[in-house]
Amino acid sequence: MLDENALKTLFTEARTHYHFSPQPVTQEDLRRLYDLAKFGPTSANSSPARFVFLRTPEARERLKPALSAGNLDKTMAAPVTVIVAYDPHFYDALPKLFPHADARAWFAGNAELAEETAFRNATLQGAYLILAARAIGLDAGPMSGFDRGRVDEIFFAESGWKSNFLVNLGHGDGTGVFPRAPRLEFAEACLEV
Amino acid sequence: MLDENALKTLFTEARTHYHFSPQPVTQEDLRRLYDLAKFGPTSANSSPARFVFLRTPEARERLKPALSAGNLDKTMAAPVTVIVAYDPHFYDALPKLFPHADARAWFAGNAELAEETAFRNATLQGAYLILAARAIGLDAGPMSGFDRGRVDEIFFAESGWKSNFLVNLGHGDGTGVFPRAPRLEFAEACLEV
Repeated sequence: MLDENALKTLFTEARTHYHFSPQPVTQEDLRRLYDLAKFGPTSANSSPARFVFLRTPEARERLKPALSAGNLDKTMAAPVTVIVAYDPHFYDALPKLFPHADARAWFAGNAELAEETAFRNATLQGAYLILAARAIGLDAGPMSGFDRGRVDEIFFAESGWKSNFLVNLGHGDGTGVFPRAPRLEFAEACLEV
Repeated sequence: MLDENALKTLFTEARTHYHFSPQPVTQEDLRRLYDLAKFGPTSANSSPARFVFLRTPEARERLKPALSAGNLDKTMAAPVTVIVAYDPHFYDALPKLFPHADARAWFAGNAELAEETAFRNATLQGAYLILAARAIGLDAGPMSGFDRGRVDEIFFAESGWKSNFLVNLGHGDGTGVFPRAPRLEFAEACLEV
C-alpha cells in the first residue's frame, strides 16, 4: 500500500501541466518511463501502444500543422511531446508476448476486434505512461485536441501506426495551472449492486 | 518521486490476479478507490467513466450470461467485479466539470467526437482505477472477454451507459498467476525523433 505522499504525487495533488521549466527530460528518463509503463496490464499482454517521443524542435515542427490552436504554443515549448499511438497489427507480436496460446489467431482474422483491442489497450497504456511519468518526478500534459489523420500522414505513412493522443512531458513550472475543477461524486459516477 | 517499493506495487512487481483470498473488499475500499481514480486527467475534465461495483452473488449471477467461458469461474468467485462503463451523454455534466468554457457544445452536436472521447477517456479512467486499486493494497484482474452488448442490455437498459471492460478486485492469493510474460523492448515500441 502506498503512503500519502505517493498518492498525492499520482492522484490527489497531481495536476495537468501546460508550462515547463527548462530542465530537460533525458533519454534515460524516457527509458525509465517506458520500463515502468510497459508492465501495466493489457488484454492478452498485447501491448499495442507505440510511443513516439518528440525531443527536438525539428520533430515538433513536423507536428505543428496537426495541432489545434489551443494546444500549439504549449506543445512547441514542452521539453518532450509523446505521440501515444498503436500498431493495428499489434497481434503479430503475440507469439512473443503471449506464449501461452495462439492469441494471434484471435485478432488476425477479425479486424473489428483487433481495432477495438488496439485502441482500448493503447489507451490504457497511455494512462500507465501518464502515471509512470508522475511516479518518476515528471509532469504530464495530455491532449486530444489535434488532427489524428494528419499526424498519421506525417509520422506513420510507412509504419501504419495510428495516433491516439498526445502527452507533453517535463518539469511543470506551475504557471497557468487551473484551480482544481470539481469531480463527479461517488453517487454520480458509481453504482453498487 | 516514488520510492522503489511503490514502483514495485504499481508496476514492476504487480500482476494480474485470477484468484482472491476470502478477505472482503469493503464499501469504504470502493469509495477510497474512486476518490483516487477520479483525479486522473481526462479531456476537458469530462470524466465519462461510470463504475458499477458488483458486490453480491445475485449481481454476479446477472453478469454470468455475458461472460466468456474463460472468465466465468474466476469472476463468479471474486469479491468484487467492476463494470467499467461510460455515459455517452457525459457532456451534460460539463457545465459542472469544466466551468471555464462551454465544453458541452463541443460534444453535444458531434456524436462521433462524443463517442470517441467517451471511450478513450473512460478507458484512461479504467487504467487509473487499476493502478489506484494497487495503490491501496488491492489486486486487480482486468478482462475484456465478455459480450458488451449483452452487459448493456442486462445492466444499462435504462441509463444508456455502455460497458467497456471488467475488473475483478480483491486480495490476490497468487494461485494461477502466470510467470511474467515478456514485454516489447524500448526499441520495438518507441521512437525518439
